Amino acid sequence: MSLSLNQWTTRQWSLPEAVDGCARHGLEAIGLWREKVAESGLAQSVKLVRAAGLRVSSLCRGGFLTAGGLPGEEGRTAFARALEDNRRAIDEAAELSAACLVLVVGGLPGVKPGEPLPAAGFTRDLAGARERVAEALAELAPYAGERGVKLALEPLHPIYCPDRAVLSTLGQALELSLPYPEEQVGVIVDTFHVWWDPRLFEDVARAGSRIAGYQVCDYLHPLPEDVLLGRGMMGDGVIDFPPITAAVRAAGYTGDVEVEIFNADVWAADPDEVVATMKARYEQVVLA
Amino acid sequence: MSLSLNQWTTRQWSLPEAVDGCARHGLEAIGLWREKVAESGLAQSVKLVRAAGLRVSSLCRGGFLTAGGLPGEEGRTAFARALEDNRRAIDEAAELSAACLVLVVGGLPGVKPGEPLPAAGFTRDLAGARERVAEALAELAPYAGERGVKLALEPLHPIYCPDRAVLSTLGQALELSLPYPEEQVGVIVDTFHVWWDPRLFEDVARAGSRIAGYQVCDYLHPLPEDVLLGRGMMGDGVIDFPPITAAVRAAGYTGDVEVEIFNADVWAADPDEVVATMKARYEQVVLA
Repeated sequence: MSLSLNQWTTRQWSLPEAVDGCARHGLEAIGLWREKVAESGLAQSVKLVRAAGLRVSSLCRGGFLTAGGLPGEEGRTAFARALEDNRRAIDEAAELSAACLVLVVGGLPGVKPGEPLPAAGFTRDLAGARERVAEALAELAPYAGERGVKLALEPLHPIYCPDRAVLSTLGQALELSLPYPEEQVGVIVDTFHVWWDPRLFEDVARAGSRIAGYQVCDYLHPLPEDVLLGRGMMGDGVIDFPPITAAVRAAGYTGDVEVEIFNADVWAADPDEVVATMKARYEQVVLA
Repeated sequence: MSLSLNQWTTRQWSLPEAVDGCARHGLEAIGLWREKVAESGLAQSVKLVRAAGLRVSSLCRGGFLTAGGLPGEEGRTAFARALEDNRRAIDEAAELSAACLVLVVGGLPGVKPGEPLPAAGFTRDLAGARERVAEALAELAPYAGERGVKLALEPLHPIYCPDRAVLSTLGQALELSLPYPEEQVGVIVDTFHVWWDPRLFEDVARAGSRIAGYQVCDYLHPLPEDVLLGRGMMGDGVIDFPPITAAVRAAGYTGDVEVEIFNADVWAADPDEVVATMKARYEQVVLA
């Protein structure tokens, strides 16, 4: 296992700056975001990460596949659009030789992050939303497989079930992945999202070589008002990392360990200091 | 199944006022809180609910059993104190002929709701905290059994895992209950806490006659800053109630359905209007 910087942790940095930062800090891998890749251009991004000798531990992110659950034409159009966008994301991941394309599958159709529930035009049909994800996967997995890209289903903490991901546990993600070859569909273990799960250790073992990525960050207490930003530097929250790291390793995972932090203070800090802290905490808190 | 007012929903009301409110609105059952019972006195509370012909669908709440996970003398003292308090709660539940005593088991030892993590004096040992709950249950279940009281383990939404309950899923609660006769230990199905769980329907069926209570309220989106108050009137949030109600019924549950809402707006409203709305929404949204 080797440490990787997920570039959203140092959001101030452009892709070229983040690639340079990884090189200066002696990191061997980087997790990229599509927005940042688009800013620099795909071809230029590929060139930069190759020149720096970096592995791309993941591309974030595809997904948001549930809008197809809206009724009628609106749902059909949204579903087709989501598939099209995900095919583009797969193409980008192939160009970048990313170890996986992370999929955040989407919440209840019509429910938007941070916005009040609309009076109409949303659905409470959670089971249906989960079926849309399975349907989308059936379309996307072969497309990804043909391009040598692994889709990585990321279960999100249940707090995000309404608006970001109806995929809420590692076990659920694993079951969705099983119909496909493991080169095509895997799962992400992100400590923030799964630390509380009483079945975590059982499901990590069961996931085995389906584990496509291991992401670490801490779970802050109390959570900030915008719960999306409740991710903290390892050691600043309530997660006991070593048993989880040990379980992921015992399951056979030998890939990179990405640090992905969404946090207003971290984003406001000097990115070089953030990377230095991240390296130290990784040794002290994650592996210890 | 019959509707019950959990008295925290109409927090402004004292116990006598809530009993009177139930009678005036034609409800047959009430869920009581220990704080409110203490204000009116236990004997007087028993007298009032009996005179009104109300069933006590639950007494809220015992639990907070995890502080024993703190090291040394502090942990031992906290554990002994928690057991003593829970024995008192069991005695009260027996006097009130409550259908169950709800247990909110407690979070990580030393982590307090709404307060920043202390520099020391807390633990990240989640597995250990869960073991403390099992140990406490071994002490309390026979005591409850001798007094004809059923302990009801309530899994709380994973968002409360750090500070309120390391019991996070219905399946986990069910497994903790299995060593005991079902007259001694059951589980609570509270829609707010479990609606997102991909194993919900499987676990409700598996729970069967272990279901000691069915509590309903909605899950608001977005959650308010104090996430404890994210519980809303049925119909105001994202939960699709009828399939859950049907599953609880199919599992054999024939007890009362408590409406338990923690919400600043509901608490500020006229309690009589709250009860009227609750009755209407129960018919329209929960049973529909």
